[in-house]
Amino acid sequence: MQEFEKNKLNRVKRGANRAVYDKEHINTILDAGFLCYVGYIYDGYPITIPMAYARKDDKIYLHGSTANRMLLSILEAEKTSITVMHLDALVLARSGLHHSVNYRSATLFGHCKKVVDDNEKAAILEQIVDTMVPNHWQSLRPMYQKELDRTIVVEFTIETASAKIRNEGVNDELEDYELPIWAGLIPIKQVALPPISDDKLLDGIEIPQHILNYYQSHK
Amino acid sequence: MQEFEKNKLNRVKRGANRAVYDKEHINTILDAGFLCYVGYIYDGYPITIPMAYARKDDKIYLHGSTANRMLLSILEAEKTSITVMHLDALVLARSGLHHSVNYRSATLFGHCKKVVDDNEKAAILEQIVDTMVPNHWQSLRPMYQKELDRTIVVEFTIETASAKIRNEGVNDELEDYELPIWAGLIPIKQVALPPISDDKLLDGIEIPQHILNYYQSHK
Repeated sequence: MQEFEKNKLNRVKRGANRAVYDKEHINTILDAGFLCYVGYIYDGYPITIPMAYARKDDKIYLHGSTANRMLLSILEAEKTSITVMHLDALVLARSGLHHSVNYRSATLFGHCKKVVDDNEKAAILEQIVDTMVPNHWQSLRPMYQKELDRTIVVEFTIETASAKIRNEGVNDELEDYELPIWAGLIPIKQVALPPISDDKLLDGIEIPQHILNYYQSHK
Repeated sequence: MQEFEKNKLNRVKRGANRAVYDKEHINTILDAGFLCYVGYIYDGYPITIPMAYARKDDKIYLHGSTANRMLLSILEAEKTSITVMHLDALVLARSGLHHSVNYRSATLFGHCKKVVDDNEKAAILEQIVDTMVPNHWQSLRPMYQKELDRTIVVEFTIETASAKIRNEGVNDELEDYELPIWAGLIPIKQVALPPISDDKLLDGIEIPQHILNYYQSHK
């Protein structure tokens, strides 16, 4: 089991019993999603932007327009942090204090650089689309060079990271279990609804199998 | 219609046609959720932390332990930004470039201060719980003074803000509509599953009506 070394950046202080530094566990959290929250600093403010991503080994890839303020800013700073969170349940205790949520979150710290090789950029854009919907890229119109030229791809190398996971029931004060108060969990899940075909499809174009598979596995 | 004045902080550059500065519209996005992403700066890194929140007028309230590094940091900096995002659909175009998501997001900029009055703190904690699950606080064991003392409540005043909304179908290149490629939306929704009562409930305690109502309106 490979772990990130704990330092002042990634050491979890509050709820340290929920902290995870194991790379495989953190990668499982990252690979369960396709939307991350990227931080950048502008005019002294820390600003958070939701972005699509893909992971390969210890790299997270982001992309956007060549004028994207956030991407240009993290490239200039050469570092940032990225957070991914999945909400799993509302935890409703007998007292307000013990209310919580079940979740899986990871915070990554690392450095950023621009990907300049066109073949590498193209492969990463393919991976970002396929992270959103598996096996989707091969069904699309091939990318034009001018589209590639209009896109920045940023490679973020994970230097250190931590995750926090809460995956349990209600934890109330011992004496509160005697109270006639309901407590429990409400599980929360992000689901897909049935795909809606574009109005302007050519006649005879059916919803492809990989899209139906996505819906079946996310409904 | 009250709008936030556009300045360099909140002006949306990329996808400016999707930008919204209208306060009522932004409040609708904020009131549709209970989890926000708060930025803070630590050791030069912008770090993003997911947090529960409640809104009242132009204030966003956060809370946490008196040792919470993020809350202490934004109180010291006296300012931060907060992002809320709701994902509504995957937008699957005929080309990779036009892939997108439908979403509603708001980014708020403002200043922070600690709430010190106990009555005000208690009312805010009640509102944070009721923002997660409406009408829930009244069913709980009353809060102890020592619990209030262990909790920091931060008041964030929205000084400026912007929202971005995408709520439409696929927008492909004109010539790509002739291609025999499927395109469309996969709607995405966050849902609640049936409540799971705590194993240790006293005999005869049923799931309360407000919890059943929550499930019915979020399933």
